Amino acid sequence: MALALRDGFDCYCLSFDYGQRHAVELVSARKIAQSLGATQHKIATIDLRLFGGSALTADISVPKGDHPPSAASGIPVTYVPARNTIFLAFALAYAEVSKASDIFLGVNAIDYSGYPDCRPEFISAFERMANLATKTGVEGTQRLQIHTPLITMSKAEIVRAAVDLGLDLSMTHSCYDPGEDGRPCRRCDSCLLRQRGFIEAGVQDPALA
Amino acid sequence: MALALRDGFDCYCLSFDYGQRHAVELVSARKIAQSLGATQHKIATIDLRLFGGSALTADISVPKGDHPPSAASGIPVTYVPARNTIFLAFALAYAEVSKASDIFLGVNAIDYSGYPDCRPEFISAFERMANLATKTGVEGTQRLQIHTPLITMSKAEIVRAAVDLGLDLSMTHSCYDPGEDGRPCRRCDSCLLRQRGFIEAGVQDPALA
Repeated sequence: MALALRDGFDCYCLSFDYGQRHAVELVSARKIAQSLGATQHKIATIDLRLFGGSALTADISVPKGDHPPSAASGIPVTYVPARNTIFLAFALAYAEVSKASDIFLGVNAIDYSGYPDCRPEFISAFERMANLATKTGVEGTQRLQIHTPLITMSKAEIVRAAVDLGLDLSMTHSCYDPGEDGRPCRRCDSCLLRQRGFIEAGVQDPALA
Repeated sequence: MALALRDGFDCYCLSFDYGQRHAVELVSARKIAQSLGATQHKIATIDLRLFGGSALTADISVPKGDHPPSAASGIPVTYVPARNTIFLAFALAYAEVSKASDIFLGVNAIDYSGYPDCRPEFISAFERMANLATKTGVEGTQRLQIHTPLITMSKAEIVRAAVDLGLDLSMTHSCYDPGEDGRPCRRCDSCLLRQRGFIEAGVQDPALA
């Protein structure tokens, strides 16, 4: 969002209440959208527990460990089937209604947990499809573009970019399996990747303070 | 659904309660899924009124007339932004969780109301994207296929095919703007296209009896 604002875009933010274990991330999303000056912020409710099939949306335990996962370990159980396809489909509807031609998405393919829908080839295929799916696509009046500014950055680079932009990272949330008080577990893949990113960036994580 | 069953597929049916004016179609969907012998039938609740922008999901009147629309009249206000992209994204999640590799969708590009997301080029682009979006796509274990058996049939051909398959068309619902009793208005685009289809097929519409 901060990168989109820096590039001069008005931000119509979209978050999802999808039955995720870590719904506390929506509290963070709301705070951040508001503090950075979103033009609008909508939260779509879509119950992905209807399908399950993931540690984030079904009664499957979130794996815990001491080391961040590597791509070699395959696609983990925290993968939510077709989640980014669904998120982008909603963003496409929101963009069309708001007459926006640019969608920003924070996916990251490096340091990642092996999610198929975080890869650049998925994003380009979605963009191509999106331009055939909509009114503006048919009328040829507007070409829709999907921006993924974080996709090839390491977590350490993301932390440094955030610090350079003067962002307050204490507002952010990454943990898949927070305690009832919303505090990060520090042992899920998402916590471990975040931790390594902060260490490599040489920055203290203010969310752990 | 009847065509998929004829071709030997077990059917995991998916319908959407998306804030549509004609939510009565879900009653029909449930009856039909049950009577034809669905293995499973899920109804996903997704509130597209969050975005609006269509006569089906916002306080915009459904156009009424005496003649079916033609493609020349452009994309009508009953177009719901990105609806089929969203529907297919959910179907993709459901398919992945159910280990299904075939998605059937009843879109129709002929006799249509000018919807961009009912065209064959949209469907192929979605299929290509879907195979990059999912676990099976990455692992290369299963190729997902999207079937749209009605896409190039006229409404009359669809009526005749249904009759040949011995289907009970009195269970079906097409109207965009039914009365409180659920009865079709007979004057929206969807009613007019259906009416012309039955007339051309030489079949009485049992839903109007």
